[in-house]
Amino acid sequence: MVQNIAVIGAGLIGRSWSIVFARAGHQVALFDQAPEAVEAALSLIDEALPGLAEAELLRGAAPAGVRGRIRGAGGVADAVTGVAHVQENTFEREDVKRQIFAELDRLTTPDTVLASSTSGLRASRYTEDLRGRGRCLVAHPINPPHLVPLVEIVPAPWTDPAVVERTRALMASVGQAPITLRKEVDGFVANRMQGALLNEAFKLVEDGVCDAADVDIAIADGIGLRWAFMGPFETIDLNAPEGLRDYCGRFAKMYHGFATEDPTPRLWSDALIHRIEAERRETLSADKLGDRTAWRDRRLADLVVSKMKAAKTIGD
Amino acid sequence: MVQNIAVIGAGLIGRSWSIVFARAGHQVALFDQAPEAVEAALSLIDEALPGLAEAELLRGAAPAGVRGRIRGAGGVADAVTGVAHVQENTFEREDVKRQIFAELDRLTTPDTVLASSTSGLRASRYTEDLRGRGRCLVAHPINPPHLVPLVEIVPAPWTDPAVVERTRALMASVGQAPITLRKEVDGFVANRMQGALLNEAFKLVEDGVCDAADVDIAIADGIGLRWAFMGPFETIDLNAPEGLRDYCGRFAKMYHGFATEDPTPRLWSDALIHRIEAERRETLSADKLGDRTAWRDRRLADLVVSKMKAAKTIGD
Repeated sequence: MVQNIAVIGAGLIGRSWSIVFARAGHQVALFDQAPEAVEAALSLIDEALPGLAEAELLRGAAPAGVRGRIRGAGGVADAVTGVAHVQENTFEREDVKRQIFAELDRLTTPDTVLASSTSGLRASRYTEDLRGRGRCLVAHPINPPHLVPLVEIVPAPWTDPAVVERTRALMASVGQAPITLRKEVDGFVANRMQGALLNEAFKLVEDGVCDAADVDIAIADGIGLRWAFMGPFETIDLNAPEGLRDYCGRFAKMYHGFATEDPTPRLWSDALIHRIEAERRETLSADKLGDRTAWRDRRLADLVVSKMKAAKTIGD
Repeated sequence: MVQNIAVIGAGLIGRSWSIVFARAGHQVALFDQAPEAVEAALSLIDEALPGLAEAELLRGAAPAGVRGRIRGAGGVADAVTGVAHVQENTFEREDVKRQIFAELDRLTTPDTVLASSTSGLRASRYTEDLRGRGRCLVAHPINPPHLVPLVEIVPAPWTDPAVVERTRALMASVGQAPITLRKEVDGFVANRMQGALLNEAFKLVEDGVCDAADVDIAIADGIGLRWAFMGPFETIDLNAPEGLRDYCGRFAKMYHGFATEDPTPRLWSDALIHRIEAERRETLSADKLGDRTAWRDRRLADLVVSKMKAAKTIGD
């Protein structure tokens, strides 16, 4: 069923969400406080769509059709009129979120879901006093959502379970991969796991075990390969003859041992950050960061397409 | 330069190493204490090679050529005669390693490198008393090495730096991705990072934040995608406008905060393992573990081929 969706904030994330919803057939109204940001976003979307179509990333939709379903809105009220879902992507500051959510609550009808793309600010921090707080929640994407399917759905304590379910269903219907958190935790799930891995990575370099470049190889040419198509639990489930319990019987104590050797969490020190920064800048000079980011996006798109094809031919 | 290489132990890892060295043009002698294991391994290699060639995983070598460079050896002495490198893949027990390394030390000339594939046993635990201990080290692959390039080179305190360098050069020359640890640590680098991520994953499930399946989605449809072609340091270097130092300025305290919330390392409890095992068995019954493992290997092969193509067309 075609729905009307408002995307508030026309930066990188808002642009990408617009493509996600429009390629799935929904009507998108895109708004930004800065009118020129909307124009810029629409131009960038125009530029991006043919390449996405060619790479089979519009899932069969034509660029003109997708573009035709995205309109710039002249104000928040204009954007949200008659929409089923609002995806908010404004600046990551609690006061900003508080203000826009109050406005969205005022301007929308009780059947509109109000979802924030925030990566770090729990919905409970800026929706408590709203009349419509039961329809507010976090729907956190990984950038850019038109390539990376994960969406972390994080309800506040007062979010209506039906709203959680509707958001999950919407995200699944547009081809994203929603997960639902049962309670609010800082960092949600993906960034907490990234953090655990990063903390170990910084520790290995700080302790002189290996260089930062070697940590990167250990992931990108090693254990990261499986994680691109299987999560950590499925990985260990298939890494012992009798499955996960068998694996845990063999290795739980070993992993606990690694963690207990030196259990005090370390803040990444300035000296350590400086050292790893210096190593990175030898590999990639600061003036090449933009080029390398463009390379990353091309590789990410290629990986996503390869993965979709593999899911079809080999199975998912 | 073509070298003679001995592979000791003809299980899954030994078979895979044989393919790695032979597809690169080296002459491989494969030995196992159980003569039927060598025969079985050679048959399995025969079966695997045409498919690997078709998938472009023999890097241009013909199956018959690769197979022609692998011979079954009748004994350790036969296998190691005139070899530059021994890759040992026997049972993961210290007494077994001690015995085979003593034998290898006795039967080889001082210019032969003796490398163990062990995932967990430091070379210093079973090579200290050997005359040739300076040429012993760990060269730990990720299974299976003919698909996953990472090799962790871990010298004992007495390993000759020239031996470390030779092993690194050999691994790079056959298309693997070697990293060098400066000192021995339990778990080496890759499994320590896997452990950190798994410990957080188990904690999230134990604390009721989400299901194990959702953890898997968060990686496989989220942050795991980038890690298949960039390590964690390059990832964060490209995730803030001014690079890694900029990223750390924004997020170091946040990640430290996640770790300090509840810093005591937890042993995965039996109840928790039971719960996640039960969840996995709902998704995949125990009798389907073998099928799913075969699926994983096909997906892994597909990913590796896609990645090699992307490295050529988009850049690495």
